[in-house]
Amino acid sequence: MLSLDKVFDAQRVLKSIVRETAVARAFGIAPECELYLKPENLQITGSFKVRGAGYKIAMLTEEEKARGVIACSAGNHAQGVALAASKNGIRSLICLPDTAPISKVEATKGFGAEVCLVEGCYDDAYKKALELKDEMGYTFVHPFDDENVIAGQGTIALEILSQLDNIDAIIVPVGGGGLISGIAYTAKQIRPSVKVYGVQAAGAPSMFNSISGGAIQCLESVQTIADGIAVKQPGETTFALVRDYVDDIALVTDDEVASAILALIEKQKMIAEGAGAVSVAAAMFGKFPLAGKRVVSVVSGGNIDVTSLSRVIDRGLLNSGRSSSLLIELIDKPGQLKDISRIIADCGGNVTGVHYEKGATESVHGVFLRIDMETRDFDHVKLITDSLKAEHFKLV
Amino acid sequence: MLSLDKVFDAQRVLKSIVRETAVARAFGIAPECELYLKPENLQITGSFKVRGAGYKIAMLTEEEKARGVIACSAGNHAQGVALAASKNGIRSLICLPDTAPISKVEATKGFGAEVCLVEGCYDDAYKKALELKDEMGYTFVHPFDDENVIAGQGTIALEILSQLDNIDAIIVPVGGGGLISGIAYTAKQIRPSVKVYGVQAAGAPSMFNSISGGAIQCLESVQTIADGIAVKQPGETTFALVRDYVDDIALVTDDEVASAILALIEKQKMIAEGAGAVSVAAAMFGKFPLAGKRVVSVVSGGNIDVTSLSRVIDRGLLNSGRSSSLLIELIDKPGQLKDISRIIADCGGNVTGVHYEKGATESVHGVFLRIDMETRDFDHVKLITDSLKAEHFKLV
Repeated sequence: MLSLDKVFDAQRVLKSIVRETAVARAFGIAPECELYLKPENLQITGSFKVRGAGYKIAMLTEEEKARGVIACSAGNHAQGVALAASKNGIRSLICLPDTAPISKVEATKGFGAEVCLVEGCYDDAYKKALELKDEMGYTFVHPFDDENVIAGQGTIALEILSQLDNIDAIIVPVGGGGLISGIAYTAKQIRPSVKVYGVQAAGAPSMFNSISGGAIQCLESVQTIADGIAVKQPGETTFALVRDYVDDIALVTDDEVASAILALIEKQKMIAEGAGAVSVAAAMFGKFPLAGKRVVSVVSGGNIDVTSLSRVIDRGLLNSGRSSSLLIELIDKPGQLKDISRIIADCGGNVTGVHYEKGATESVHGVFLRIDMETRDFDHVKLITDSLKAEHFKLV
Repeated sequence: MLSLDKVFDAQRVLKSIVRETAVARAFGIAPECELYLKPENLQITGSFKVRGAGYKIAMLTEEEKARGVIACSAGNHAQGVALAASKNGIRSLICLPDTAPISKVEATKGFGAEVCLVEGCYDDAYKKALELKDEMGYTFVHPFDDENVIAGQGTIALEILSQLDNIDAIIVPVGGGGLISGIAYTAKQIRPSVKVYGVQAAGAPSMFNSISGGAIQCLESVQTIADGIAVKQPGETTFALVRDYVDDIALVTDDEVASAILALIEKQKMIAEGAGAVSVAAAMFGKFPLAGKRVVSVVSGGNIDVTSLSRVIDRGLLNSGRSSSLLIELIDKPGQLKDISRIIADCGGNVTGVHYEKGATESVHGVFLRIDMETRDFDHVKLITDSLKAEHFKLV
């Protein structure tokens, strides 16, 4: 049974494995409240997952430890289990789909796990892990639906409450629900007045739908940049704990998540993964009544691959008017590019790409010109488009 | 006169203004040494500059304070002076060239300064600042060549030495030399055995050249992504202190800096600006004898604009084989793109761009096809190019 005593026990046990991440004030992200961040992206392994896995593994019997553990994950849970097993001196085997990024496979091996690459998707790897568990006698470490795992995640609430006084609300990312179950249960035992809010990606609203519907529901598919919380179905234990202890759940869009990632980069010099940033996105975009409140957003992880990060930044620049792309319909005659370049340069825009494209222009001598630019903001973009229109260029 | 007592005085005075940034172990960046980071990118204002400016301003007479301060900077110094002045309840005026990014102007205003935009470049803004100083009686806060500023930066060494024992070396970015002067002077007073190494950008080697040449030299121009240390000429005080207290200075290329920024993102979930990452680049790329040593790299700042960050990441992906671009010379007939797409897909490459380009192909029916891809590493790129060659495609 989950109990506050168990969470304190987890904190004691985890002392040698996890970092006590320092709560940091975040300025300029959600100005209407007093926002703090609990940066579990700076946790060892880059996410909170090592807490739950660490406590789960430490609580195994000697016999179970001797046989080793198995888990299935393409992400943070894999690294958490790998490190926790190594620290406990036991063997771990992680099943990953063979489509998992090389970087995640290498990181998992780097923390001391054996890796079993399974052809197919996550579900195939999961099936294989259960087979191997039965065959070899490993203990399966569930990523969220396990009371010891939940107790481990609950240690985050103990740290937050000891690091900061008079907290009004804690905002927590929700995938399978292990993190928020641990935090909500623990926080409410100690400080019943604190609100605990959950956040899911709009493209993976499994807990949101289940709680609104009053029963566990399973999504057919999930699609979001917050891949760490793209879970199709909540656990039974976590569903019950969220229903009993969480005050509200909200959804955020991928564009809101991208903006939050960008804000964390610019204001906090910090990298969060999509799943880690949903709690910040919720505060930024007013999903909960936070005005005047002292709020802690749990940034649950920072393991975003750099290719995705690059795309998120590009999207964020577009969304904030700091890059833009114009399509101009021209009659193809000498001097046009010269005039357009002059107008953009005079306005202070910086051209980064020029492409001529044939297409269904009005005149048979027409052509489409696409111009990519770095700009300051939407006002700046408007200044440039207005200047082009003033010289009779046709923007489409 | 600079003295250890003055640095301790600065530490006392700065307590209410600066954050004591926590030294953090960095894994996987420079494996041959035990690397720690002093993350001044997480300092308030996003860089160490607030320390020197803060002490300088606190030491002004009441009369000087009443008249206010002036500074010239397009970057971190501006924000440091602005915040330090506000905290001391005095007026500050910052001259910036009108080409400075809007974000820096806004940040400087945000910390409470008045901003004077000067037409032209940095030198024009500097000249204007000196004029206004004489005209209005402001005190000029020099960005580095001032003993109180240097004493303020020296507080970083006090923190490092109290946070970590048995340090063998400290690596410090060098622009005008204020930061390294303060750190080297302070560290050597307390722990003479500690090595202090400086790092400049290869495109702005002013202190490096001056020290090698034995006298202050002035560069005609500077060009580097580490714009925060792109200084043409060291100060007189800083030159003498670096000559007397710094063990060695090395240069790093822009590509090395880009790799260091990327490593900090991936391994530490942390954003550094170019100038802030040169100290990490030096450790990564073996510029100093660090094998087996306990080393602290000072990450001096994190104020990189997101557009530059996006470019640095793109460059870093290219440099590590995680993105690549192929140019294939084709005879333009149906089915070619289909075959090429199939080969790349079979190898697991992800196509992100396709461009047909006319040009001087061997056959008059020829065309160049440029394919942009996301790849895993250089081996993966080679697998793809080898597979294309095996089916007789001509890579150029």
